Amino acid sequence: MRTFKLTLEYEGTAFHGWQRQPGLRTVQEELSRAIASITCARGEVTVTGAGRTDAGVHAVGQVASFSSPTALSPAVLRRGLNALLPRDIRVRSAEEAPASFNARFSARSRSYHYIFIRRPTALWRSYYYLVTGELDLAAMGESLAGLRGEHDFTTFTTAEDGSSVKRCRVIRAELIETPPLVVVSIAADHFLHHMVRSLAGTVLEIGRGKPSSVAEMLAARDPAEAGPTLPPHGLYLMHVEY
Amino acid sequence: MRTFKLTLEYEGTAFHGWQRQPGLRTVQEELSRAIASITCARGEVTVTGAGRTDAGVHAVGQVASFSSPTALSPAVLRRGLNALLPRDIRVRSAEEAPASFNARFSARSRSYHYIFIRRPTALWRSYYYLVTGELDLAAMGESLAGLRGEHDFTTFTTAEDGSSVKRCRVIRAELIETPPLVVVSIAADHFLHHMVRSLAGTVLEIGRGKPSSVAEMLAARDPAEAGPTLPPHGLYLMHVEY
Repeated sequence: MRTFKLTLEYEGTAFHGWQRQPGLRTVQEELSRAIASITCARGEVTVTGAGRTDAGVHAVGQVASFSSPTALSPAVLRRGLNALLPRDIRVRSAEEAPASFNARFSARSRSYHYIFIRRPTALWRSYYYLVTGELDLAAMGESLAGLRGEHDFTTFTTAEDGSSVKRCRVIRAELIETPPLVVVSIAADHFLHHMVRSLAGTVLEIGRGKPSSVAEMLAARDPAEAGPTLPPHGLYLMHVEY
Repeated sequence: MRTFKLTLEYEGTAFHGWQRQPGLRTVQEELSRAIASITCARGEVTVTGAGRTDAGVHAVGQVASFSSPTALSPAVLRRGLNALLPRDIRVRSAEEAPASFNARFSARSRSYHYIFIRRPTALWRSYYYLVTGELDLAAMGESLAGLRGEHDFTTFTTAEDGSSVKRCRVIRAELIETPPLVVVSIAADHFLHHMVRSLAGTVLEIGRGKPSSVAEMLAARDPAEAGPTLPPHGLYLMHVEY
């Protein structure tokens, strides 16, 4: 058996997220089917993803792993998968990995962008979250800085979160301005369910003048303290570090 | 009667182009209906556009004009139209214009971008035309430079073109590189049917090493000499000058 690591890009709009669900179009299902086909697998192929993105969430650098006895080279695998996969999933790179490699459990950190667009536009509507009006960008940046380090993020998740460990170590949390876009950029060892979308909504409220302290919100460990969970189409899984 | 000038942005993907066609969703029809509604017009409102964009072509700076006895201010008109229009059309600005103003006939020049993306991506597929492999960007830029000035563009149009004047004065024709994008940027007093898409296809062939001379192609006045007409989704109406 050989183990492979794939780096993937996908447009989340037409998928019910990463994770396989009976009868729904998911990235995991499409990928698993294409891998089974190209490797001539007799049964199903188990594909593990670094981040289980929700419906509508995009990926620029998702990582997936699988094992197969195939003799195909990583380059042929990449080209073959891109020929078989629908156009809204692309394999950016394929490489062979040590047998112990698991896209989910070997990951040291994940990096996400939540992207706001600051002027109403007819274009790119499934790629950015529209925010009009004044924003206090300095206050937003300061709130993000307050997230760095290790904290219990119970406030910024939902009851559906299945993680046993609610403590996450935030490595990077900053605001990047590239008009007309404003990007909430966060990297952490792991993320809880809806965590980036909840943090982006909280930081947005602060930018609109709500006097909130993320330190107090974190300490409360209560989802009722968080701002709104923003819609999925502004969210991108950017990179996974191993 | 007052005359108004609107600057519009639209995503061309879900429209059968600008021009009204019975039973089809067009920008002109949507706009005309919204204007009739907000100005309480009893009959239909005639809306003129500076450029009759095809199905799938996007606009960042289309200009439209219409006349109405309405007492509404341009600012209220803009906000009201944006409330009524579907999300894939936005009115960027509205202003009152002299009675003689006509978006089509008063225009001094139009500017278009045809945008190539140079790496396969799962995202933004309805916004850029994918081009892989090596490109001789210098040769492409030189070919574009050869289009400047006044020429007969019969080679770069189709039999469906209804213009009586095939001579166009090209004011700007250049290649703009912003990796991973490459932009063919052209401004002219007017354009013939499919002209930018045909020029972009011709320049692309030259970039791929075809030894062609645009001067000879122009002189031939024969559409069979042109490169392929590229698909509409890479094309943007950027700006109209008055």
